Amino acid sequence: MPTRIAEAQWTGTLSKGKGNVITGSGLTRGDYSFASRFESGSGTNPEELLGAAHAACFSMAFAMIVEQAGFTPEKIHTVARVTIEKGAGGFSITGIVLQTEAKIKNIDEKTFQEKALEAKNGCPVSRALASTPISVRATLLK
Amino acid sequence: MPTRIAEAQWTGTLSKGKGNVITGSGLTRGDYSFASRFESGSGTNPEELLGAAHAACFSMAFAMIVEQAGFTPEKIHTVARVTIEKGAGGFSITGIVLQTEAKIKNIDEKTFQEKALEAKNGCPVSRALASTPISVRATLLK
Repeated sequence: MPTRIAEAQWTGTLSKGKGNVITGSGLTRGDYSFASRFESGSGTNPEELLGAAHAACFSMAFAMIVEQAGFTPEKIHTVARVTIEKGAGGFSITGIVLQTEAKIKNIDEKTFQEKALEAKNGCPVSRALASTPISVRATLLK
Repeated sequence: MPTRIAEAQWTGTLSKGKGNVITGSGLTRGDYSFASRFESGSGTNPEELLGAAHAACFSMAFAMIVEQAGFTPEKIHTVARVTIEKGAGGFSITGIVLQTEAKIKNIDEKTFQEKALEAKNGCPVSRALASTPISVRATLLK
């Protein structure tokens, strides 16, 4: 089974330093900084990369789960929102919200919501993040 | 505090469908598929995006921790390796290895290893991934 690679380099101190990150495929290449992570500076940050991993994993898992239940997934679009907050123990990722809109043939609303929850609980990235509060809001498109 | 956004769309079934993913900054834009995730197809996958989040978070946290201990971080380069494996319950992320090489002024080897472990345990992405086995291998560059 595959092992996937990504690299990041940080140069200098926390507040004045700068970083860059690249994935094995080369499709993600970005600079990041204290400002792009905790303020509104331009660049990437670990939280949006985590959100990308989660949205991608969830969308794929949801397709698999409805397919296994006998439905035909047409399109699943998911936005992940990852919140980081400062508390007594420093910065923490305090929650992830998955907001998904999906077009799935012939599925009823109740089954749709059950399968969305199943995908939220079961996708490999959700399970890796089991110690983080994750919620899903699912809309069935007509 | 910031909430970061990423989006993914999956079209079609698990084996024949295809996906794309984008982060709020726009710096990550990639296609993904069953083949790019579980086989050797070209494209991105959730695991390398998770690795990017983790390597970026760890490198930044390690800089902060050595700085707080009175040392000057010059350069911290980290490779994250994320393994996904198929078991009885389906695919699972079974481990993440962080391999870091760092140039830090005047730090001794023992303190360096302690601080690397502290960064591995304490960085926000590591804590979000607390249910996943994570290890760190740290090399102090002269």
